[in-house]
This record gives sequence, structure tokens and C-alpha cells, in this order.
Amino acid sequence: MTKSKEVRLKARPVGMPTAADFEIATVDLAAPGPGEAQVRNLYMSVDPYMRGRMYDRESYVPPFQIGKALEGGAIGEVVTSNDPSLKPGDLVNSMWGWREAFNAPAAGLQKIDPMGLPPQAFLGVAGMPGMTAYVGLLKVAGCKAGDTVFVSAAAGAVGQIVCQIAKIKGATVIGTAGGADKVAYLKSIGVDHAIDYRATKDLTAALMEAAPKGIDVYFENVGGDHLEAAINAARPFARFAFCGMISQYNDTDPTPGPSNLIQIVGKRLRFEGFIVSDHFAEMPAFISDMAGWIKEGKITWRETIDDGVEAAPGAFMKLFKGENVGKMLVKLS
Amino acid sequence: MTKSKEVRLKARPVGMPTAADFEIATVDLAAPGPGEAQVRNLYMSVDPYMRGRMYDRESYVPPFQIGKALEGGAIGEVVTSNDPSLKPGDLVNSMWGWREAFNAPAAGLQKIDPMGLPPQAFLGVAGMPGMTAYVGLLKVAGCKAGDTVFVSAAAGAVGQIVCQIAKIKGATVIGTAGGADKVAYLKSIGVDHAIDYRATKDLTAALMEAAPKGIDVYFENVGGDHLEAAINAARPFARFAFCGMISQYNDTDPTPGPSNLIQIVGKRLRFEGFIVSDHFAEMPAFISDMAGWIKEGKITWRETIDDGVEAAPGAFMKLFKGENVGKMLVKLS
Repeated sequence: MTKSKEVRLKARPVGMPTAADFEIATVDLAAPGPGEAQVRNLYMSVDPYMRGRMYDRESYVPPFQIGKALEGGAIGEVVTSNDPSLKPGDLVNSMWGWREAFNAPAAGLQKIDPMGLPPQAFLGVAGMPGMTAYVGLLKVAGCKAGDTVFVSAAAGAVGQIVCQIAKIKGATVIGTAGGADKVAYLKSIGVDHAIDYRATKDLTAALMEAAPKGIDVYFENVGGDHLEAAINAARPFARFAFCGMISQYNDTDPTPGPSNLIQIVGKRLRFEGFIVSDHFAEMPAFISDMAGWIKEGKITWRETIDDGVEAAPGAFMKLFKGENVGKMLVKLS
Repeated sequence: MTKSKEVRLKARPVGMPTAADFEIATVDLAAPGPGEAQVRNLYMSVDPYMRGRMYDRESYVPPFQIGKALEGGAIGEVVTSNDPSLKPGDLVNSMWGWREAFNAPAAGLQKIDPMGLPPQAFLGVAGMPGMTAYVGLLKVAGCKAGDTVFVSAAAGAVGQIVCQIAKIKGATVIGTAGGADKVAYLKSIGVDHAIDYRATKDLTAALMEAAPKGIDVYFENVGGDHLEAAINAARPFARFAFCGMISQYNDTDPTPGPSNLIQIVGKRLRFEGFIVSDHFAEMPAFISDMAGWIKEGKITWRETIDDGVEAAPGAFMKLFKGENVGKMLVKLS
């Protein structure tokens, strides 16, 4: 009998998640049933949006359940298959992450053409974070040549791709990140002005210095003082794509919003929230563009990899401390 | 020599404007020069946006100058004209309000076809506030049949028109206003749910009760707790048209924004600020639609009229105390 370790939600975190909110369990995996395949995960993803699923509340995805294995993106290899569409060795993308192995109907597994990329790229640059950057920047914010684009959490899984697509499209790019290593990384991928927000007292002043004429696009990953600075620095008709607000995911009390929202009127700003899954129609365009950019060396990326399913809770917590550069992953086998 | 009284800005208001911030002066008016006309104003408009022009700061309109007459919309009658395009008795719309009479180049005066309406209608339902309602609701928010539309300051100059256009388009309308008289007025113009915000402790709860399935459109005139309630009650993909935030125009300290902005992401909300002057291309459509609706009795309106140019500062202050119903006007002759 195959064994699989998995990570379960033990308690709903209050504030910053801790190790005590998770537990590791080992389950026996039967042989896959008819039409099913057995998959051994190679890499699993931890993503900031998962924090929202740990609350017991209505949202665009159902909450995680206490005592059940957590779900999330994973790349695995088919071990055995009872369905003609899959054969052992096939690479598959699934949403059964936070576990080493699992059985699933073949229809619930997305077979992947590796295109010469390492498998974990399909959890990052060529997967959901890359696609999030692509639709958020190009479709939601409508980024075009000549724009000045401000990206928060610019050294994160999504941010690093936003910065590079913006450069490809002919924009000037300003990115914020915490710490000298991340700032150096941003400069290495062509970011025009990299701001270390931890070393910056007045983010509005830093942004206005980097963009004296103001910004046309803001890619929002952080919230709080980043959003306030972006509004202050916005030019008339600036477009803000709201991808997330990681600074607030662990708040236990309501955090007031920025005090300068009134500028939405005078500057005719447009704020728009988006979820990548609403934009899957763009997938073929994304895959085609991204494969080309990677081949031409126009898009590069970093990832932070921890080892073993037991490391997943810690890897998840790193996201909120800013301890990852690029995509945060857990290697499972 | 013709005399004209005018209202000048004496001091930049700090917080709520007071009578001491204004002064009345009498000027001598020479005969109009070549190509000019002399106009006697019949009505002048006071509008919330004028508060912004009393600050000395960069914005989409230049600040008012201390010691100079205030500017703003006015409807007047041509007294004498040195230009063939205008003749005595013509009705003209201008931006030389806050004064009884003035000379101006004919090109700076917009001749009006009264279309059977009283002249002051061109400062309200058939003028800038009506056009603001029209483009904000239909073009910016994209209101359509079946939408549930929430309008704040619904008994104001703009709000009253937004409510009625939304009803014409087949929407369900929820409006907030302060006091029983305004609530009764809202019901009389077809608003489905009229909320007296002064008698309501929990605006989110009141809104959710009026719209159990949530709102599709929010027409923002107020800010603060109104915006927070609208975000809480928003359905996925709701569109917010930001016209103004009158609750904050007199703030002396920064007022924090709502604490629930993070919902922009999960609900994929769209916020968009607008200024009516960016949408003048819609003017012919607006005039044609509005003239038809008024003729068919589908749009009605209220106005609050004070008398004489000396009353203008007080009329302006009433806007921020919510003491006007419908369009606030000053009758000048």
C-alpha cells in the first residue's frame, strides 16, 4: 500500500499563522479506481490567497475545512493510470497540493507539455502567478508603451513577472520590495527604480522621486501605505489593478484604508479587482507569449524552495514575513 | 454706469466655510467692448465641488484667488451685445457666477434654447448636475435593466436625477438622504428603498436589508461610511462611479478610508472616478434624452432657492449641512 503524507488545517489561524495551526498526517493510498490516475507530486505551491481560505467565511473559493488536507496548486508525475488519456511519467498540474501523492479522476488533472521548462515553472512563471501578472497588467490595467508602472511586492512570484512584462511592453517600471537582496534582484531584471520599502520612511516621496510626472498604472499586491502612495503619485486617468493586499491578510482588527481616496474623483482613477480564474480564456495567448519571452531570454525568474511536505506550513508563513524571493515552493520528491 | 454686486473669496476656509470667508463688493460695469455682451445673471449655482477650489492646491481646476469674485455656473440674460451671435433677451449659460452682471466675449457664452423649461433648469436637471448623473450612471457605471443601484446623497442635485434615470433604465434603486422630508421626496420620485442615514446606526445592515442580494452599482457622492457600506453590500463585479465625497470636503485632518477595501479583489469591484467635463461629447445625447424624459413626465426635480447675491455664501454652506433638497440655487434678478 502506498503511503502519502499530507498537511491538514488543525485550527483556523488568528492573526499570523503558526505551526500549531497545521498538522501532518500519513494516509494509505489505495490503487486508483476506474478512470483515475495516481499522482506523485513533485512540487507544491504556497500562495498568499490561501490565507483567505483559512477563514470560515463566504468568498470566491470555499473555506478550507478543519481536519482536512489543504488544497492548492501542485505539479506531479503520473505513477499509474486507469485512464487512456494519461500514462506513467506524464506531468500533470492539479489542485490537490499539500500532499505527497493522491488518486484523482483523469479529467481533474491537467496534462502539461514541459516545453523544456523545469516542472516547477508551471507553478510560477508559466503557471497561475505568471498568468495573474499577464492578465492583471495587460488586460485589467491596460498597460501600454510609455506608461510608468508601479508594482508592489515586485520581487514576489507575481510581481517579478509583472515587472518584466511591463518592460517588454515599453513601460518604465518602479518596484518596491523589502531588503537589499530583493532590490538588487529587481535591478537585475530591468526594473528602472527599485525601492526598499523597509528603508523608506515616506513611500509617497520615494515614489514621486522615482516618477516625477506620476504613475499611469499601479499593480496592487500589498495595500496600506503602498496603496496610499500610489494614489498620491497617480496621474490623471491612472489604472490600478488590484491583485491582493498581503499586508492585511493576517489583520485581526479592521485596518482603515488610505485617507486619500477622494483623489479617485479629481484624478479620474480606475481601480479594478481581478481573480485570475475569471480570465482563463486568455490562457492560450498567455502560454504562447510567455513561451516566446522565456525562449528569447526576456523573462527570467527566481524561486525559493523548501524541502518536504513537513516544510509546507513554514514555507506558507514565510510569504507573510517577506522571506521568499520569487515564487515560494515546496519540493515533495 | 451699471453696478454689479459680486461675492469674493476673502479667506481660504479652514474646515466648514463661514460667512467670514466671503465678502460682497460692488463694481462698476463699463459698456461691453467689441465682440462682447453684457449679461445680467438670473440664477447662479452653488456646487459642492467649489469647496475644492477654495484650497490653494493643484487640481483639475485652478484654485479660486483671494480677493477675486468666485466663479461658477450661472444662467443669465443678454442685456446688450456687440456681437452678431447674441441679442438682448437671449438666455446664456456661463461660468461667471457669484455676480449679478458681467461683460464677456460672446464666444465664452453658451446660448440656450429654453425648450419650455424655466431658466434655472439649465443649472440643474438640464445642466451640469443632470449631465453628471447621466454620464456617471450610464457611461461610467454602465447601469442596465435589472441592476440594483445604490445612490448616496440621493435627494441632492445630482442624486435625484441618478435615481430617476436608473428607474427609467429598469433598475431597482436604493437611495440615502438625511431626514424625513427627503426620504418622502425620494419615495415620490420612485426610489424603491429610501434610507434616512441620520436615523440609521448601521448603514451596511440597512443596505443589505434593502438589497438582500447585494448591489450592482454604487453612485458615490458622500464617502466615509456610505462607501464602506456599499463595498460590504456589493455583489461580484459591482461598478462604483465616484462623483464626489461631500462628507470629506471640509476635513482638516486626513480621514482614514474604509477598512474593507480588500473586498475589491475578491469581489472584482471596479471603482471609477469621473468629471463631467471629460464627457462633453455626450452632450447631444444627454439633451435629447433628458428633453424627452421631462416631456414624458418621467423626470421631475426639486430645487432650493435663496434670494440675492448676498445669500450665496449661506447657500453654499447649506450644501455641507444637507439643508438643500435638490439643486441649490441663488436667484439674482
